[in-house]
Amino acid sequence: MKKPVSDLTLRRFPKYIQFLKTLQKRGEKYTSASEIARRLGVHHTQVRKDLALTGVRGIPKVGHKVDDLIKAITKFIYWDEISYAFLVGAGHLGTAILHYQGFVKAGFQIVAAFDKNPEKIGKNIASVKIYNIDRFSYFAEKMDVRIGIITTTSEVAQKITDLMVKNGIKAIWNFTPIKLSVPADIIVENVDIYPSLAVLLRKLHELEKASRKK
Amino acid sequence: MKKPVSDLTLRRFPKYIQFLKTLQKRGEKYTSASEIARRLGVHHTQVRKDLALTGVRGIPKVGHKVDDLIKAITKFIYWDEISYAFLVGAGHLGTAILHYQGFVKAGFQIVAAFDKNPEKIGKNIASVKIYNIDRFSYFAEKMDVRIGIITTTSEVAQKITDLMVKNGIKAIWNFTPIKLSVPADIIVENVDIYPSLAVLLRKLHELEKASRKK
Repeated sequence: MKKPVSDLTLRRFPKYIQFLKTLQKRGEKYTSASEIARRLGVHHTQVRKDLALTGVRGIPKVGHKVDDLIKAITKFIYWDEISYAFLVGAGHLGTAILHYQGFVKAGFQIVAAFDKNPEKIGKNIASVKIYNIDRFSYFAEKMDVRIGIITTTSEVAQKITDLMVKNGIKAIWNFTPIKLSVPADIIVENVDIYPSLAVLLRKLHELEKASRKK
Repeated sequence: MKKPVSDLTLRRFPKYIQFLKTLQKRGEKYTSASEIARRLGVHHTQVRKDLALTGVRGIPKVGHKVDDLIKAITKFIYWDEISYAFLVGAGHLGTAILHYQGFVKAGFQIVAAFDKNPEKIGKNIASVKIYNIDRFSYFAEKMDVRIGIITTTSEVAQKITDLMVKNGIKAIWNFTPIKLSVPADIIVENVDIYPSLAVLLRKLHELEKASRKK
């Protein structure tokens, strides 16, 4: 029985893939944990431990084959399989996410979107059809989708969560700043930009304070 | 000389504010570090340490005044001052960010946006005017803005970064998945959704594997 991999570890893998793909584009065949570490600002012991998780092995003094590493990491985070998702809330943020080009390489596809706005229902955004939210149960049963993306307003986020859980959604990607209540076996992954804004503003003010003192 | 506050600590403050505001709305006057800890799933020692940073003091056996805590935390992360920002890249993501309602409460205001698409230049998105990217230097000098938001494609992100740095931008909020190169005194805060997607997909697959074994 393997120990589950920590979130912090998983979060590093997309960065490894991104760096490895730039090497690949430049025609470089080999890399090493130390090169990855240096370029991404992660400690080399950490990189070595992470790569070991994927089962890929380096050649002493030569390093890792770039192609092999990309393949192993992609498989490790399941980006080699296709995962289907529903999106609820076809507002500005929902539209931006529907247009996101990069999901294809992550094996991620949004197959239907839902909204309650009659002006949006029936239209397509980035080739994804928008349905009335009333039809969520119907499509969830028909398409057996396990991932739900919430890009609604904060006010309805919990109601949509409950609807998703009732209809077999197992993993929720929450783009609202609300902390969702879910049963213990449901995965919630939050994307919240406020924590990032707090860091940015505080650091900027500290920097300006320090430069005024000089 | 105070030690700079860690990013991880700063990231918790917006969550505290959010929880405290729900208490405020419900008309509750007092709360405690243990209540905050329990509701947000953070260890109570951690909450106590974080609150102490803001200088606010609780009353033994009664706890903290909700209003005082909100005020102290808001001040601590500088959300009580107005910070002005430029946004570059008025595509779908840029549009979503321009429409973001919540920035006002964080004292954050986007005062101008830039793009190179002639169809966008001269229009307004959420009351923010879109200018030709050629005019970035002009407005940066005129308005003395220190924060730049990058919502362009990955391909031009570094070029825009260089333009920003040359024109006095001190803090960059990067919404592209690119690792930006900047001088040491420039703050970069990245919002990247791929790490979050890696966690979501891996956990979902682990969960499904486990349930198939049962």
